[in-house]
Amino acid sequence: MPAPHSRATVLVYGAGGALGRSVVNAFYQAKWHRIIAVDFNDRVPGATDTIKLDLGMNMEECHSRIVKEAGLLGGQPLDSLVCVSGGFAMGGANDDAIFESVKAMYSSSVYPSFISAKLAGDFLKQNGLLLLPGAACVERPTPWGLAYGSAKAAVHHLIGSLASDATLRAKVGTLVVGIAPVTLDTPGNREAMPNEDWSAWTSCDELAERIVAWSEGTVTADNGAIYKLITKGGETDYVIM
Amino acid sequence: MPAPHSRATVLVYGAGGALGRSVVNAFYQAKWHRIIAVDFNDRVPGATDTIKLDLGMNMEECHSRIVKEAGLLGGQPLDSLVCVSGGFAMGGANDDAIFESVKAMYSSSVYPSFISAKLAGDFLKQNGLLLLPGAACVERPTPWGLAYGSAKAAVHHLIGSLASDATLRAKVGTLVVGIAPVTLDTPGNREAMPNEDWSAWTSCDELAERIVAWSEGTVTADNGAIYKLITKGGETDYVIM
Repeated sequence: MPAPHSRATVLVYGAGGALGRSVVNAFYQAKWHRIIAVDFNDRVPGATDTIKLDLGMNMEECHSRIVKEAGLLGGQPLDSLVCVSGGFAMGGANDDAIFESVKAMYSSSVYPSFISAKLAGDFLKQNGLLLLPGAACVERPTPWGLAYGSAKAAVHHLIGSLASDATLRAKVGTLVVGIAPVTLDTPGNREAMPNEDWSAWTSCDELAERIVAWSEGTVTADNGAIYKLITKGGETDYVIM
Repeated sequence: MPAPHSRATVLVYGAGGALGRSVVNAFYQAKWHRIIAVDFNDRVPGATDTIKLDLGMNMEECHSRIVKEAGLLGGQPLDSLVCVSGGFAMGGANDDAIFESVKAMYSSSVYPSFISAKLAGDFLKQNGLLLLPGAACVERPTPWGLAYGSAKAAVHHLIGSLASDATLRAKVGTLVVGIAPVTLDTPGNREAMPNEDWSAWTSCDELAERIVAWSEGTVTADNGAIYKLITKGGETDYVIM
């Protein structure tokens, strides 16, 4: 008998980014039947379905397109919903781009998290997994990135709240977890920080494998936990914040 | 010699709400020279200037109108900037109005806080006060109000970050504080909760007097502190969260 939620349907929100592509690939390698990729891309390698969002769509429009194009109404429910959408911006109280940064950070992290929460409330199976994109920096004030830090703090609070949300708790065994990277090892980050110690950065492929393991239940996750990713010498510890 | 920042210029963002009106009135009673009220109202009693925002304006537009109509560029700097803008919404993961709530909560609490942060960065005096609108419920998960809780968590993180923001720290003696009410004693709350113990609610007028005292430096506030308002039998304690 197969595990209750292995190798079925996953939706990956933010599938076009470096981590998103690793996540899609890891579910592909794990032979999940249906891998629904959501992003601004035309096609994500390994996905069975790609849902392309347009820049400038609001939350309702993104949500409606996903529900429609994924055939969620009356279709197969989701076994796993992995939101790894995100962005990054610096800037303090006198930054002239502060409002642009707020809009970008909320659009890339907070709104996709709420859309994922609603999709999970309506379409996630019993014993399913909802994963949202946090950040380790939220442990401390982030004067260097007011918009980024506050958006990630909003996501962290959302994770804790969803872990005890009545709708999600009614789906027995369902878990809501967050990931809180320090730095992900992506081409963009290598380009931006060429002189840093990359061995202290977290591999997207390894993290993606962990996300599949949490989804399949082969590695235990705690409901409401936000996992800080502490990487040293290429090895990553998952420490609950 | 007058205290360094008494009886000069204050900007009250969200001046048209129950707390905002109390705050404007308290500064009026304290004989501050200039009281700039910002809200969707035509006129707030006691204010020397009222800046009316339009619903649907984005952050940049709100900010520009305030800077222009208050004559901040090249004009007198602000001694105190009090943002008490806010809203309230219930709703969990399967709430059909969740996206509307997210938009409403971020528009009413988060965006005004960022606009206030930018105004403070550019126009707040040395030894000034910036106050932002938090909420006591953020201490715990808020599954009953996902949008409300996450928006207030974002504001709390912003307060902590602004307290160590380089621009604001360069203004010697300047304080960034938050207020975290449990329940404010407003007509709206009395109407919504007629059977609650109103003596456990915080008086807007008393809180407004405390905000004037913090602004004038006659009562000490701690930089970065978020003050939880614990009211019992009509008496309010200000407890740092």
